[in-house]
Amino acid sequence: VTLVRRPVGAPVPEDFALGDVGLEDPGRGQVRVRVRSLSLDPYVRSLLGSGHLAEAALPLGSVVPGRSVAEVVDPGDSAHPPGSLVLAETGWRSDAVVDSAALRPVVVPAGLPPSVALGALGMPGLTAYAAHVRHLRPRPGDTVVVSAATGGVGSVSGALARRAGARAVAIVGSREKAEVATARLGYDAAVVRTDPRWLDALDEACPDRIHGYAHLADQATLDGVMERLAAGARVSLVGVIDQNNGAPATRLRVGAVMVARATVHGMVVHDHLDLTDDHVREVSDLLGEGVLELLEDTHVGLARAPEAFSRLLLGRNVGKVVVHVHPESSRSTEHPSQPRSST
Amino acid sequence: VTLVRRPVGAPVPEDFALGDVGLEDPGRGQVRVRVRSLSLDPYVRSLLGSGHLAEAALPLGSVVPGRSVAEVVDPGDSAHPPGSLVLAETGWRSDAVVDSAALRPVVVPAGLPPSVALGALGMPGLTAYAAHVRHLRPRPGDTVVVSAATGGVGSVSGALARRAGARAVAIVGSREKAEVATARLGYDAAVVRTDPRWLDALDEACPDRIHGYAHLADQATLDGVMERLAAGARVSLVGVIDQNNGAPATRLRVGAVMVARATVHGMVVHDHLDLTDDHVREVSDLLGEGVLELLEDTHVGLARAPEAFSRLLLGRNVGKVVVHVHPESSRSTEHPSQPRSST
Repeated sequence: VTLVRRPVGAPVPEDFALGDVGLEDPGRGQVRVRVRSLSLDPYVRSLLGSGHLAEAALPLGSVVPGRSVAEVVDPGDSAHPPGSLVLAETGWRSDAVVDSAALRPVVVPAGLPPSVALGALGMPGLTAYAAHVRHLRPRPGDTVVVSAATGGVGSVSGALARRAGARAVAIVGSREKAEVATARLGYDAAVVRTDPRWLDALDEACPDRIHGYAHLADQATLDGVMERLAAGARVSLVGVIDQNNGAPATRLRVGAVMVARATVHGMVVHDHLDLTDDHVREVSDLLGEGVLELLEDTHVGLARAPEAFSRLLLGRNVGKVVVHVHPESSRSTEHPSQPRSST
Repeated sequence: VTLVRRPVGAPVPEDFALGDVGLEDPGRGQVRVRVRSLSLDPYVRSLLGSGHLAEAALPLGSVVPGRSVAEVVDPGDSAHPPGSLVLAETGWRSDAVVDSAALRPVVVPAGLPPSVALGALGMPGLTAYAAHVRHLRPRPGDTVVVSAATGGVGSVSGALARRAGARAVAIVGSREKAEVATARLGYDAAVVRTDPRWLDALDEACPDRIHGYAHLADQATLDGVMERLAAGARVSLVGVIDQNNGAPATRLRVGAVMVARATVHGMVVHDHLDLTDDHVREVSDLLGEGVLELLEDTHVGLARAPEAFSRLLLGRNVGKVVVHVHPESSRSTEHPSQPRSST
């Protein structure tokens, strides 16, 4: 799948094209893989426009970047066994040739599908874990609020906060997601931010104000939470959806930070890779104990990636968005513990 | 001095009145004092309008609040000796009756005037010290930028950063203040924010970008600095002058915090009173060694307080603003090591 037009606002399927871009033979230090499960992530939106962090914008005609669980087809001179599963930066492709040095074997606990390595046990889960231990640091009795609480990051955050003895409050975009957050993700309460009286609902859900906040939503959500911070509150700025969709840059009222003596952190997950082992162990435990359910928004076939990505940017996903590229990879990850909200 | 009209924007002398409000006899646990040096502080502006932090707005007709170095005239049943100097919340008065429990003796190093207890060794100095050790935490080789660098807080910040091995860069409102910052306050460089090419000057002054920033200025200054943060930068939000003068609330671009993986702290000095001993010792050393000069913007006579306060809010002061209430208290603090920018 290539980018054929720069999205204006939220991406639409017409911004992308599906086609054959060819596949070179693996060179020295390269491996040929078949993509099984492709991860769709919000940060990719910035690459399609003006760039993400220090990375430049993606040239038109290029394959859209993305991370996958892939199966080694031709290991070349590498030690990866044929048929083994690896994490690879394949982009939105069915087959890819990638540098073997950048591959990591996929190791997931028994009973979980390999695609969990893209979500709760992958970068989104590590993002949630790092925000929890490095930024929000909840103490027993604290109230932790998470926006986009049923998304890839948020779906992991609530159970971590609750395990730390905090009250976990979800902010979500629909009543359906509110039900998912409290019934399946360990949140104590959920507030629907599209409800006209949502600020009253937030007050009711947070009677002791807000001690920790993970932000992955829009300006109005940020403003509402910032006015309700407890003294000494911690805020982790994980993602801004406004900017992805071309809205004005999200801004934070300085006075609210000062009055709350708050600490506000910018989250870039690559700074926290040292937490990977702790993250995988603790989140595996939460999944194994059923405190946290694995929540994936799955789609089948690479052709579905653009539409699934559009839904992700519009906040219509429930859980980590994964595209099972080949029909057989969809079947291979079928698992009774895996709720689906696939469309 | 009482408030007779709520200021619109920057306060003007006509918002205040000088008059005799009477003086009760000291009751049980009270002390009568004669005010020698009155501190004028920016936070008082919010009390005149909508309130400061959790404190309500000042009713019209009330004496304007403020802290002083005062001399005990009638100690009542307290242990404060007559003639001794105390720190007291007297308000803008020539004489006051105050609760003895709230008084602290003024102890300043030899060779320094008592009014230093209102500035470099008082709350503004503690604010600078707490921002330095708790928020900015500069490492050798870091670049620390301070706005309002010749004000009560900023005049102490530069020498602290430099002593920690950092490059200290001042942002100031005039060429005169730039000269003061580098010649007398220990700053390595100074940038005049009213210069149309000030952002180029900031780039030149900060070739390795900005690792620490103490904010006490306006929206444009904040925006300029935030776009130049180094990875892992620390920002201390100490004061916002826009809001004091009725401008729109200062806001911080969330994307800039995220790209820099910055940590942004809200500063309320009352959270850091535990640092008082360390602060007084370290800043006394800097003053004693001449690394830092004492910089006061002094005025004589209580009638001058409104005009001096207006100048403070407009950023026209150089150094800590102090009103010597009685002419003799002005003379009594005259000292060769004390530079004056009195008008």
